[in-house]
Amino acid sequence: MVHVYNTKVTWQGERRGFLQCGNGHQTAFAATPEFKGDVGKLSPEDAFIASLNMGFMVTFLAFAEKRRIPLKAYEADANGILGRKKGNECIIRVIIHPKVSVQRGTSLDVVEEVLETSRKHAILLNSIDSTLVVEHKVEFVD
Amino acid sequence: MVHVYNTKVTWQGERRGFLQCGNGHQTAFAATPEFKGDVGKLSPEDAFIASLNMGFMVTFLAFAEKRRIPLKAYEADANGILGRKKGNECIIRVIIHPKVSVQRGTSLDVVEEVLETSRKHAILLNSIDSTLVVEHKVEFVD
Repeated sequence: MVHVYNTKVTWQGERRGFLQCGNGHQTAFAATPEFKGDVGKLSPEDAFIASLNMGFMVTFLAFAEKRRIPLKAYEADANGILGRKKGNECIIRVIIHPKVSVQRGTSLDVVEEVLETSRKHAILLNSIDSTLVVEHKVEFVD
Repeated sequence: MVHVYNTKVTWQGERRGFLQCGNGHQTAFAATPEFKGDVGKLSPEDAFIASLNMGFMVTFLAFAEKRRIPLKAYEADANGILGRKKGNECIIRVIIHPKVSVQRGTSLDVVEEVLETSRKHAILLNSIDSTLVVEHKVEFVD
């Protein structure tokens, strides 16, 4: 499958801009405060970590549906750590913490297999150079 | 400099979720239509390409300010191509097309040097495994 994803940014003065995404989303953005930007707006770094967090979620949803997992809830925190590698500042490590709630009686093995498959096949997780860790928690609910 | 960036995603049924970013931005998101999602919402793939596009812009703004470039306008399209590498689907190539407008009389050499420096030091551009190309265009305006 070949797809092309497009985005456009337009500078709006200072460290601020406007973002238009190919799929239709639009929003103001800014550098983060430590880079002379603003609080409250989308930042490049947040978008990067968010893309991986969202990407893992939608991949998990696809595989969970295939395996007919009775999913009750899903949420995930993801952290990205800015550091230095080969002399360059970059996101050296990304940690995703998915918390998956499934119907009581669901096989833990199947859920963990689907998490593992998602980790292997999530498109964006395979597109980065950072060390990537997925630390999951599975909860069984009625 | 060490920073940690945090994001949270919460599933909202089907291929949809809600995103909360550490810097304060919040929005609904969904898988792209080709992955059973919706048009009009932020998608993981768009967020990924957007993060690189925004990241390059804010890096360029920082270096342009340092070199006192009289910047009049900046916009950039960025495309990400989904393909296959080592058996995995991933974003194989990202192309950023910055269009920079500076005051007539500005040195083209300095502008190109700043673009080159931004390419080398943009944090997110150093965090991915995709082939990355920056194809710039400089315009001189009164």
